[in-house]
Amino acid sequence: MKADARRKPVIALAMGDPAGISPELTAKLAALDEIRGKAHLIVIGDRRVFDAGATVAGIRAELKTVGPDTNLTAHSDEHLFIDLGHLDPASVERGVAAKSGGAFALENYRRALLLARDGVADAVCFTPFNKKAMRLARDGYDDEIAFSAEVVGLEAPASEFNVLGRLWNARVTSHIPLRDVSSKLTVERIHRALKLTDACMRRAGFIEPRIAVAALNPHAGDGGNFGREEIDVIEPAVAAGQHEGIAAEGPFPADTVFLRTKDGGFDAVLTMYHDQGQIAMKLMGFDRGVTLLGGFPFPICTPAHGTAYDIAGKGIASVGASQAALLLAAEMAMAQQKAQ
Amino acid sequence: MKADARRKPVIALAMGDPAGISPELTAKLAALDEIRGKAHLIVIGDRRVFDAGATVAGIRAELKTVGPDTNLTAHSDEHLFIDLGHLDPASVERGVAAKSGGAFALENYRRALLLARDGVADAVCFTPFNKKAMRLARDGYDDEIAFSAEVVGLEAPASEFNVLGRLWNARVTSHIPLRDVSSKLTVERIHRALKLTDACMRRAGFIEPRIAVAALNPHAGDGGNFGREEIDVIEPAVAAGQHEGIAAEGPFPADTVFLRTKDGGFDAVLTMYHDQGQIAMKLMGFDRGVTLLGGFPFPICTPAHGTAYDIAGKGIASVGASQAALLLAAEMAMAQQKAQ
Repeated sequence: MKADARRKPVIALAMGDPAGISPELTAKLAALDEIRGKAHLIVIGDRRVFDAGATVAGIRAELKTVGPDTNLTAHSDEHLFIDLGHLDPASVERGVAAKSGGAFALENYRRALLLARDGVADAVCFTPFNKKAMRLARDGYDDEIAFSAEVVGLEAPASEFNVLGRLWNARVTSHIPLRDVSSKLTVERIHRALKLTDACMRRAGFIEPRIAVAALNPHAGDGGNFGREEIDVIEPAVAAGQHEGIAAEGPFPADTVFLRTKDGGFDAVLTMYHDQGQIAMKLMGFDRGVTLLGGFPFPICTPAHGTAYDIAGKGIASVGASQAALLLAAEMAMAQQKAQ
Repeated sequence: MKADARRKPVIALAMGDPAGISPELTAKLAALDEIRGKAHLIVIGDRRVFDAGATVAGIRAELKTVGPDTNLTAHSDEHLFIDLGHLDPASVERGVAAKSGGAFALENYRRALLLARDGVADAVCFTPFNKKAMRLARDGYDDEIAFSAEVVGLEAPASEFNVLGRLWNARVTSHIPLRDVSSKLTVERIHRALKLTDACMRRAGFIEPRIAVAALNPHAGDGGNFGREEIDVIEPAVAAGQHEGIAAEGPFPADTVFLRTKDGGFDAVLTMYHDQGQIAMKLMGFDRGVTLLGGFPFPICTPAHGTAYDIAGKGIASVGASQAALLLAAEMAMAQQKAQ
């Protein structure tokens, strides 16, 4: 399947939480000419939930429905829908996180990951999940990275990236209290994040990704006056990365590092904590932001926004970020084909 | 002087650090028709340094030069320059923070504050200072707030605000290590910042300023999963403010609070730490941002950017943020006239 570098990539698209905007977004995506022209879609869900989403979106998407046990090992030129027949849309209460909705999304996603693991799909995308629903469906559900690693048997480090156009954002720490950030920052940990960012970006087609590293403290610590993490931890990690040929620079004050990057000076910003990057990325493009799970053997992309329970079923949800997610997945899959 | 509410406010404009872009910015400001139409300027500095700045900027500003001991108690209809004759421009090395430059800026600023304290000026502005130069000139120089409070004998609390158009940003903590932020956040401290923000904005002409309060932790702590400061400290402070009639809401996740505010939902954001606000404000308008020292009996405004040593003397410095600073000072002085 990898012989012809010019073939369109196959993207397994898992339907997300059914109580939010995911059904209408999935239907909108499957109907977009730009998406259909750049990838072969295999949408995974319940056809009835998908059709209800298409009705909300006021569109019609041509997809050939196949059963869950259809043999998909041969590359298909058609856009497909794998109908798991596991959720009746009449049972979905819009705007409510439910165990049944979590189970629906998890099963769609698991199937999508397996298609990619088995070489049937080149990339995985999913419309937004609701974490509460996921936890109701699966005790101890942590996040997409842990679940995906388990399903595909990944043991290498993986990380979440936020992507806006050509600009990437990675972070050293994520969902932890702000008071704990400093104690989690070690030379080794920052260095590892830097290497993972560099590796994922190369796999996505960047020849030599230029990575700006953010400082932790105001004014980058002002030479040690407002904190020493820049001197003691971040600078040595940047130096270690540079020593290995990574085009990293910094630490730069966090309040101007995105300005430098936006002006084309860098391809990525490595931030030290969640909001340091998220404040900037959401301001620069809330409607276009993509979340990418990096470190897997294939790209996994999803819109950066959530399930938007407040506007579900109204047909007004913007498909922009989901579209960007699919296009990034397709582009990365093409880059990986070329590299092989 | 306060009898005629329609008279133009008098603004004392102190020349900042002479080794950066402050001389050219001061000259540009004094030549702007919009500024001259909305305020009477009293520029304070050395006329030779100012004229050198005008040459760099390629402009000519009409200002009547007077000596340092001129009696200015009577309101003047002219734009004036108080020539302290204390710095020969030939002695200034561009791009180098020097003790003489710090002493120059400090003396200009001190005089400007005294003019406002004594009722000769209605507001104070200054072009960028260089903190290193200030510290060389004055041992233990901390920041503009402490210095200004000492000069005018202010004992009430004062705070720095960042202003972009109609959007204000105040912060509970500022130039401290990020690892210390959490331990500095108390109900009392956040409540005090909220009251000060409300009071300063009312003095600036807002009838009932709507203040969004930012959370500390990612996803506002996710109900206590990633930190408890939202529950234990921020919510009670917001409730205390609301109880006193302050139109405060929150805590909101930091990565969307500026999006809510930008869309017109709020007039101000109270952030918990320096970069939380600065990342957003600089992204939204690096060239227009104003820093306001609030809590003083008169407005004190300066551009949010620094001395820009790298482009000093090239005549390319944007006057936008300085212009916004003077216009905000003039507007606030007019609002205070009306209130009296």
